[in-house]
Order: sequence, then structure tokens, then C-alpha cells
Amino acid sequence: MTLIQEKVKQAVNLLKEFGADCWITFTRESQINGDPTLVFLAPSSVTWHSAFIISTDGKTHAVVGLYDQKTIQETGAYDNVVGFVTGFKEPFQETMKKLSPKTIAINYSQGSEICDGLTHGMYLTLHGLLSEIGLADRLVSAEKIVSALRERKTAGEIAAIKDAIRETQEIFDKAAGFIRPGKTEKEIAGYMQAEVERKKLRLAWGESTCPAVFTGPETAGAHYTPTDRRVERGHVLNMDFGVKVNHYCSDMQRTFYILGQGEKSVPADVRKGFETIVRAVESSKQAMKPGIQGIEIDAIARKILVENGYQEFPHALGHQVGRFAHDGTALLGPQWDKYAHKPFQRLEEGMVFTIEPRLTVPGRGVVTIEEMVVVTKDGADWLTTPQTELLLIR
Amino acid sequence: MTLIQEKVKQAVNLLKEFGADCWITFTRESQINGDPTLVFLAPSSVTWHSAFIISTDGKTHAVVGLYDQKTIQETGAYDNVVGFVTGFKEPFQETMKKLSPKTIAINYSQGSEICDGLTHGMYLTLHGLLSEIGLADRLVSAEKIVSALRERKTAGEIAAIKDAIRETQEIFDKAAGFIRPGKTEKEIAGYMQAEVERKKLRLAWGESTCPAVFTGPETAGAHYTPTDRRVERGHVLNMDFGVKVNHYCSDMQRTFYILGQGEKSVPADVRKGFETIVRAVESSKQAMKPGIQGIEIDAIARKILVENGYQEFPHALGHQVGRFAHDGTALLGPQWDKYAHKPFQRLEEGMVFTIEPRLTVPGRGVVTIEEMVVVTKDGADWLTTPQTELLLIR
Repeated sequence: MTLIQEKVKQAVNLLKEFGADCWITFTRESQINGDPTLVFLAPSSVTWHSAFIISTDGKTHAVVGLYDQKTIQETGAYDNVVGFVTGFKEPFQETMKKLSPKTIAINYSQGSEICDGLTHGMYLTLHGLLSEIGLADRLVSAEKIVSALRERKTAGEIAAIKDAIRETQEIFDKAAGFIRPGKTEKEIAGYMQAEVERKKLRLAWGESTCPAVFTGPETAGAHYTPTDRRVERGHVLNMDFGVKVNHYCSDMQRTFYILGQGEKSVPADVRKGFETIVRAVESSKQAMKPGIQGIEIDAIARKILVENGYQEFPHALGHQVGRFAHDGTALLGPQWDKYAHKPFQRLEEGMVFTIEPRLTVPGRGVVTIEEMVVVTKDGADWLTTPQTELLLIR
Repeated sequence: MTLIQEKVKQAVNLLKEFGADCWITFTRESQINGDPTLVFLAPSSVTWHSAFIISTDGKTHAVVGLYDQKTIQETGAYDNVVGFVTGFKEPFQETMKKLSPKTIAINYSQGSEICDGLTHGMYLTLHGLLSEIGLADRLVSAEKIVSALRERKTAGEIAAIKDAIRETQEIFDKAAGFIRPGKTEKEIAGYMQAEVERKKLRLAWGESTCPAVFTGPETAGAHYTPTDRRVERGHVLNMDFGVKVNHYCSDMQRTFYILGQGEKSVPADVRKGFETIVRAVESSKQAMKPGIQGIEIDAIARKILVENGYQEFPHALGHQVGRFAHDGTALLGPQWDKYAHKPFQRLEEGMVFTIEPRLTVPGRGVVTIEEMVVVTKDGADWLTTPQTELLLIR
């Protein structure tokens, strides 16, 4: 079974689980304004107005432009594929009249960007088309369906993520041999990107911050482009980096310490910061299991940092990973406005999370580790091999 | 002046031209649900809720997550950059209360996908935030502003497109030496993609159809993935292909004829088809100038094909090209539902269009050429060197 067949089948069951009669993914020119859900439903982009309609009776329909018809048919995931030339309206309305669903779930969400693929203009078009056939009052958010489809990873999805992690670790290991005093953040980033190219991989996010490289005190934070700042002895350096394998991402951070002139071991302030981060990661992972809320996990790491005299990190403890480095709805995060209801979602088996607390060691730099775990039936397993020692640059 | 500075400045003038007080681009996690307008306003993706606010008084504001603040400040394009940690609401509402604009243009459009970057969930959020401060009834579509910003190309944008065209032509030329009877469509596509990699370029659209390769009769159309079908003598082969240089695209089609066994010259049916396409392209280009509607140009090519006994092509004659292979709002197209009001837009100086009529020669294959032109002050100039002879494979 292909991933698309697997995911379309999973969707039928999710409709039943969440009590929706029908789910529509509605998009056009998906290379421009792509709904992030489309990759689970079609093997390539679509050009004209296209609707992928899944019904709780198990029947699956697609209404697409003529040039996309054959591609969609060949997925084997749809019972009925209509290709149109001049207008989407008629075949779409015909299909919907026959289904006449009581609820129609569509891809919008205020709280979860990954479930918010329908643009406002397309919403207006869809609403207009359904109004004409008396169905517009049945629209509801598909957030629960889309979240579960992305979050409950299949074995194939986990395997791809593991491959991405292995490649990422190899590149971190090589970079450890390249970093030395005098190298700039940009040079280190360039070295790692050249490795990605040599391995014929893709970056997990935008090239301007993948890797992000921060060396020394007072850098601007985790999402800032590498600079001409040079590696110096006695400083902490950290990197945030990931690659894609078979469309699935890794997202990892590692911390390095550049030994001072004549220094034999890691000084106490750096060691304390690092050990606090390791403990925060491990304690968070220990508490993860299906049913718990992300906010409870975030609080564990946050408390360990504060108790050890460090400031809280100004971001969530961890996010999900999948097709995107930041994926899914449920979040290991605090109750902050911008995170909406994400921290209150309950963990489920098959979810893949990062754990990434951060702290500043004054005068040294930022210590941060980002590991990846998968939620299991009764706990969580490491996907990465956790960093438990500082990477020392001599 | 950087492209972002140039485009933000252009936007201020467009607000005046179209009578809008204020224009907001509102996005989050732009690597997932990116507004295609963002690339003109910011050098990289943004993570948390972010608003880029341009006011008709020439003042420019950005409200972004803390980690994006420095990147946005360093563009030098914004007078005021606010970075937040826990919530977007307060700094955004503060900024908008001070501006108190009479109209607020936002990025949605039913008829133009390129202007439809605001998701429905984000629209609901924005509407809610503006309702609380009494401004929600001032929202209007920014379609005209966004269209003009993308469509009126600067000299730097045209230069990038010309570079992309030159690279594309070089790869077509090399492919002509690779194509021979027995090669499959997939092998030809693979050869061209290897050239793209060797040149360290990027494809102009998705790799499954860039290039699209069609050989012989009865293929599924212009947007279909290359197959294991083999090149045969006496058949027509065509390709649709483009690359990106400095983020700007080319989009070109070229037609090849594989001479039959012992055949010395192109047979009459293929020659007639090819010459009809060449004439349709040239006549369309001759008629292009500022002020004319796209539908008038489309009709010229369509008429030439029908008068010569061919069927109309089942797509628009030409689209704009820019950051995407399919870009802009104005279209050289017929009055079909799915094209909405695009064919009725008037051409303007600086717009870059394809011209790509298509016809079938029964038993031979599909003849199609796609050239690129730029609209000038009083006409249109070729950007490509037009194909006027069939590319012969012996």
C-alpha cells in the first residue's frame, strides 16, 4: 500500500472517529498556495481548482483539472476522479448533491497552522458553491481530522524520520572536526550545507537558518541567520539543524564548548548549564505518555531551569516533526496566547516530538540540546541518541 | 537598494494609486502556509504570527516574533519593528489603533491565487483582533496592490528571468543531443534534471513534471509525469521545462521531430502543425501592448488554430512568470469559469508572459511552443529566442 492509499484509508476511519460525514480538501495552484494536507492525498501539485472529498461511507472522490486527472486516478486511492476543462463548479456541485452530507469538514483553524491550508478566497468560493445547493451551513473545521492524520505516524513515516536523524548526526559529527577558533558561524553553516549537498539530501527548513549556528554570548536567538562572528576559546557554540529523507524531517540541536587556552576540562559554569539541560531533557522524556497534556511536560523542563537559577526559555519545550520540521497541532508548550489550544492537546501514540530546552551561561553563550522522541503505547522512546556530553573543541 | 527595499517602496506608491490607507500581510509558520507575497517583504520565513503593515503615509511597520525581529530590522525596509514573546495581540492592536486606517487591504482573492495568501483561520483571527478595536469593517481585498507588486517587474527581476531563460535554452540544446529513438520519456527527464543539478540550479516547478516530456500520439497532456514510453521514429516529441535563477523562473516548451526511417525532411502534416503554432505565437506577440486585455490576445492564437483545422487548446494561451512559473493575475486566456476575471485584466508595462498554443497532429503527437515576452511601453519584446524550426532528431 502506498503512503497516499494508507493515509486516505486512515482518513476514512478518522471521519468516523470524529463524527464528520464528509471532509473536503480544496486547493488550486498548489505550488503557490499549497494546503499542507495535499501531500497526503495527491502525489504532486494540482493546478486548477481541485477538491479531494472523503466520505464517511468510505467512498473517495476527486474533482480536478483535466491535466491532473490521470495522476490522481493512478494513485488508486479514489473511487471516482472527475477531470474538468472549463469549470469546476458543475462536477463539484453534482458530487456534493449526491453525497448531501450533514457535516462538511474543511481545512481551517485559528489555533493550528498545519490544519489551516484553505485560503480565505477559496473559503469564499467554496461557501458560495455550497450555498447554491443548500449545504453551506454544514461547514465545520477539519482540525481534528487533519491533526490526527499528520500526527499518528505510520511505521514508514517513523523509518524515514530515523533515516533523517542518522544523516543529521553524521553531519554534526563531521562538523565537530571542522569547528575551531577563528572559524565564522557562516563558514560552519556553509561546511554543513556542503555536506547536505554531497549526500544529495534536502534541508529540513529554509537555508538561511539551517543550520542555525550561534557562538558566544549575546546572540539574537534560535531563528537567526549565521553571522561573521568568529568562534572563540572559552565560548559555548550551539547549532540547530535538520535534513529531509523521503520527505520527512529531523530537527536537532547540539552544544559545543571551545576549551580556553591551556584549559583541561569544562569550567564549572558551563558544566552546570549543560547538565541542567540534559536533566531537563531526560525528565521531560520520562514523563511523556499517551493522555498527558503537552503543557505538563513543558512545565517539567521549565521548572528544572528556574530551580537552578536560569531564566525560562522564551519558546515551547518541544514541537512535533513530520513533513515539516514544525508539524502537528499538539505542542509541549506553555499557556501563551500565540500557542492557542496546542499545549492542551493530549499526547497520542505515534506522535514525534522534539525536546529542546535552552539556557544562557553568562559570558559563554547559549546551551541548548534538541532531541527527538516518539510517543509509544505507554511512554516515549528516543529517536535520537541523546547528547550527554559537551562536544569539546580543543 | 535591495529587492525588499525596492518592493516595499513600490508598495507605498501602489497604496496611493489604488486608494488604500493601509495594507497588511498577515502570516505565521510561513514555511507551512506561506503567503506568496512574503518573499517581497521579508528575507526569510517567519515563525509566529507576523504582520507587515504598510501605510499610505509611507510609514512601514512589522510585528513579528522575537526571533525574527533582528532579521526584519536588518532589511532596512521598516520604520518600526516590534518583536514579541508571548502574544501578538497587544503590539498589533497598538500599532493599528495609532494608524486607525479607513481601509485595510488584506491578501485574499477568489479570482487570483497569487493574491490569496491569507488562510481562512488567519482571516478569522485578524477579523477578531480588529473587531475588538472597531476596525474590522474596514477590510478589503489587496488583490490590486499584490498583483501590481508582482507584475510590474523591476530591471533586476527581468535580468534574473533572462538568466533563467539562458540556462534553460542551454539544457534544451544539450538534450537534443541525448534524445534518440528508444530513449524513454523518463530517461530524457532524468538527463535534463542531472544537468540542472550539475549547473547548481533549481527547477522552476515540481520535479515530477519539470521537465514534462511527451512523445508520440495520445499522451495525457501538458501536466503529466514522464513515462516509460519510448521515442519512436515519425513521432513528435515536446518538452515543458524551466529553472530558477536568483528566485526567478523561466518556463519554456520546445518541439522535436524524430525523422522516420529513410526520411529526409519533415512530412507535410507535421510541418503544417508546427508552422501554425509558430504563426500563432508570432501573431499573438505582435498584438501585445499595455492596455489590451489578455482575452483579446488569447483569441488571436485560438482563431489561427481553428482556421487551420485544429482543435482549440484546452488551456490559456499564456500566463505570467516571476517567482513562480505561474505568477500574477492578468492572463492571456479565454472566458472560462476557472479563469475568473483574469483574462479581462489589462496588460501593463513590465509584465512577463508566456505564449504557449498547442495542437495535436493525429498519429504523430503534440506540437507546442512556449515563448516568453515582456510587455514594453508600446508593445512586447521577446525574452526567449523564439523557436522557428523543428528540432530534428535523426
